[in-house]
Amino acid sequence: MRVLGIDPGLTRCGIGIVEGSVGKPLSMVGVGVILTPGDMPLESRLLELDRAINEWVLIWSPDVIAVERVFAQHNVRTVMGTAQAAGVALLIAAKSGIPVMMHTPSEVKAAVTGSGRANKAQVATMVAKLLNLSEIPKPVDATDALALAICHIWRGGATTKIATALAAEKSRLRKLRG
Amino acid sequence: MRVLGIDPGLTRCGIGIVEGSVGKPLSMVGVGVILTPGDMPLESRLLELDRAINEWVLIWSPDVIAVERVFAQHNVRTVMGTAQAAGVALLIAAKSGIPVMMHTPSEVKAAVTGSGRANKAQVATMVAKLLNLSEIPKPVDATDALALAICHIWRGGATTKIATALAAEKSRLRKLRG
Repeated sequence: MRVLGIDPGLTRCGIGIVEGSVGKPLSMVGVGVILTPGDMPLESRLLELDRAINEWVLIWSPDVIAVERVFAQHNVRTVMGTAQAAGVALLIAAKSGIPVMMHTPSEVKAAVTGSGRANKAQVATMVAKLLNLSEIPKPVDATDALALAICHIWRGGATTKIATALAAEKSRLRKLRG
Repeated sequence: MRVLGIDPGLTRCGIGIVEGSVGKPLSMVGVGVILTPGDMPLESRLLELDRAINEWVLIWSPDVIAVERVFAQHNVRTVMGTAQAAGVALLIAAKSGIPVMMHTPSEVKAAVTGSGRANKAQVATMVAKLLNLSEIPKPVDATDALALAICHIWRGGATTKIATALAAEKSRLRKLRG
């Protein structure tokens, strides 16, 4: 499974691709960060982000896109831009017919470090270790995007299986009821 | 000037087109509301919104798109969806090469009622009066989108003129300085 992870942001949007599956070694396919200047009009920044993410999708044909879930409570000043960057990623996934899932920051931290309260350095160290990288990718947004992709590979499979099982059970019950 | 006004929202996105210019009568070209169900995945809601707004743009070829500026402080629960809906509209404008401007709710209220603190009913009454409508368009999101378009026609022209004048003055000063 090839997962494109996106740590959404207007100023810096982390992007990373990881290939692997549960119980098998993971490998990094690509990593980067999309920058849009703060003095550019908002619509042009969104357009640039759209262009860049689309390019990654076209080049690497991911099976799934994983986007970090944005919360309104923290960073109120930047949250609008972050939400819009996440929206651009979700829209690209929907347009391309690529399944997309969101994971919260604590789900990502828990997946790669074992603790939902791990700090940035811990996450970065584990990402480098899990992907067998000699250096920690910079900036932190790029590392976060890789962590997100890893989280999806490890959680996503399970989540999809549970959803499929639940749907099957529901349909079975519906048939039984008549 | 034909302006497409958008009152962004995921559950209800108001959309309205007004034609006119400063000092001339205004007329409503179209009005509506785009609904996306809350139980639909977020990416599908954004896709549906994108499809519907694009359709309005294609059919009516607006000269300008005006989007209500979203603030993070109020309605924290729904602000993310609102920001993303606004982002979809901004991205469509940028992709279509149509100029886009944002106006705050109080700018819109001030433009159509004379007071930035006017209530919804006052705004709706003035929209109906200014557009010579026998009834107030429903729901309120549709009326807000029309108010936004009117606000843009009355403010937008002036703002553009000021921006052009400022740019000309800056370039004159630069030349003088050598």
